[in-house]
Amino acid sequence: MTYQTFPVLKNDRILKVARGEKPDKLPIWIMRQAGRYLPEFLEFRKKHSFFEICQTPELACEVTLMPIKRYDFDAAIIFSDILVIPQALGMTVEMRPSVGPVLPEPLTLDNMKNLKKDGAVSKLKYVGDAITLTRHKLDGKVPLFGFSGAPWTLMGYMIEGGGSKTLSKAKKWLYQYPEVSHQLLELLTEVIIGYLVMQIESGAQIVQVFDSSAEYLNNSLYAKFCLPYLKKIATEIKSKLKDKNLEQVPLVLFAKGAHFNLSDQAALGYDVLGIDWTMKPDIVRSTLKDKNITVQGNLDPCALYAPKEELIKLVTDMIKAFGTDRYIVNLGHGIYPDAPTESVQTFIETVHSVKL
Amino acid sequence: MTYQTFPVLKNDRILKVARGEKPDKLPIWIMRQAGRYLPEFLEFRKKHSFFEICQTPELACEVTLMPIKRYDFDAAIIFSDILVIPQALGMTVEMRPSVGPVLPEPLTLDNMKNLKKDGAVSKLKYVGDAITLTRHKLDGKVPLFGFSGAPWTLMGYMIEGGGSKTLSKAKKWLYQYPEVSHQLLELLTEVIIGYLVMQIESGAQIVQVFDSSAEYLNNSLYAKFCLPYLKKIATEIKSKLKDKNLEQVPLVLFAKGAHFNLSDQAALGYDVLGIDWTMKPDIVRSTLKDKNITVQGNLDPCALYAPKEELIKLVTDMIKAFGTDRYIVNLGHGIYPDAPTESVQTFIETVHSVKL
Repeated sequence: MTYQTFPVLKNDRILKVARGEKPDKLPIWIMRQAGRYLPEFLEFRKKHSFFEICQTPELACEVTLMPIKRYDFDAAIIFSDILVIPQALGMTVEMRPSVGPVLPEPLTLDNMKNLKKDGAVSKLKYVGDAITLTRHKLDGKVPLFGFSGAPWTLMGYMIEGGGSKTLSKAKKWLYQYPEVSHQLLELLTEVIIGYLVMQIESGAQIVQVFDSSAEYLNNSLYAKFCLPYLKKIATEIKSKLKDKNLEQVPLVLFAKGAHFNLSDQAALGYDVLGIDWTMKPDIVRSTLKDKNITVQGNLDPCALYAPKEELIKLVTDMIKAFGTDRYIVNLGHGIYPDAPTESVQTFIETVHSVKL
Repeated sequence: MTYQTFPVLKNDRILKVARGEKPDKLPIWIMRQAGRYLPEFLEFRKKHSFFEICQTPELACEVTLMPIKRYDFDAAIIFSDILVIPQALGMTVEMRPSVGPVLPEPLTLDNMKNLKKDGAVSKLKYVGDAITLTRHKLDGKVPLFGFSGAPWTLMGYMIEGGGSKTLSKAKKWLYQYPEVSHQLLELLTEVIIGYLVMQIESGAQIVQVFDSSAEYLNNSLYAKFCLPYLKKIATEIKSKLKDKNLEQVPLVLFAKGAHFNLSDQAALGYDVLGIDWTMKPDIVRSTLKDKNITVQGNLDPCALYAPKEELIKLVTDMIKAFGTDRYIVNLGHGIYPDAPTESVQTFIETVHSVKL
């Protein structure tokens, strides 16, 4: 176990802000910052398939470091994919060019019994190894994020067999087979807990749960099929870290599009809430007032297409609207493949130039 | 001009509620009620292509009447598509099975000058003819909706060349070419105004503007690139109807996913606001309090997958939450192709059984 022997962390802005402490500068990172908008990543992908990179710690480490070498980000996030969990459960996941992830044999009521929960976390040891290696290679420059998909978001992909504009197949389960849905969500929750604890043991200094498909639900469905599992994930991670005598790490929840229950999300035990770009900063802050929670977000990913002066104005206005207290700057969604690399530079410089 | 000679309307519930008057029963219709979930429509589609139906008044009329014959809906909506406007402007639009609409030559800065605004409304005369014919065939049973896509939603399809998960190409225009974007939105607005006035002259008794892609924007973008055009549409329709000595008809706006500015939408001159299924009824009602506006929505389309008793409970709870005042019941999105036809029956019966 290499946990105690990592290089000393030199930039702890994000960890401080997540815990409610004051940083020296406003911190920034970007969802999907190690990905398709980087020319060096596109070059790298010519030689390696998507899941080959995920599954090979040296390759995942190299890609994770790309944006850290190029930019002054305040965190790295391990290169991986939320669909490694369905893979570890025995499902086939393919990454098809210009289509995205495809699960050729989606989950059905009949084949659900084939999901192999036991041993799933061990099968994901390669993510832990990539994290450990990356912690060393980062040499303490910035903290390293681990992450997982949320139960509902994973359930969505597993049933739909890939992306969907409505998630109507997966939502049909929620309405027609609520008991089976709860069984599946519980199974996923248990794997996610083990997976995130393993990531933290391997060196992740902060972890984010991506509920990217929250937007397809509504308040009732989210209260019934998501909140209890998200709460269990936060509670159990903390309790397991305590049992193992490991330091607690900040937990981040990003429930994309769940404008309908931001206040409830703040009561689940996470330290940071990710905010998508459709949310108005003033509404976010007034909703979360007195909730003792940090917010993260929420620049429209398309704002990176704006000319430099306009982008600076958009970023400055956003920071003014959120205020600099308990605030981690990010996009409100993963960066798009055609985002100009210079805009990312401008975004970071603008954020770091804010006087605190 | 057949405007004055239509059969007398026997069911004016929706028109009454849109105007703020009390109906005898709570009215209901469903977005995409004449479409793929109906076996008779699927049978019909084997013989006729999608746009053949749109463009042939007799066929469009027949399909429009299908749900009216089968169910006790309180309105019909003319069978058509929002993309008939790009078609009339000279763009090719294809409806591809299991893909949806495709515009093989999307709009670019270069080819935008080829859009043929003059005469576009005349080219859509077939929609007016379908409306006139349907008004007669309906024999006054229920009122007939006309509709159009909103400027931003049409712009999105025209630039993306079809559906998109992010609308990042169209949004790029908003950030990179705001002037050109405004020119395009203005052009679309003028055509939409002419198109909707023509529909009303042809017999549409209420019209709905679908801003189905509102959810990809945020408050700033929506305020800049949508609200002014939506307001102009409402204002100009009213003024043109007045100039022509025609009776005003209720105007409905459905800005799907625009949770960020419901209050602003209420100030644009529409009589009814459509509400998507992610919105909480209590928030909607408190936001729109004192706004003198009717709401329409918002059952999750997937609730139709629920067992009968559960569906009845969901519908009853929704009506309780919205209250019966100034309320038109609908789904919060168009009905999905695999919705069970019995659930639609249950939905309607539950709504009509509510004591007012």
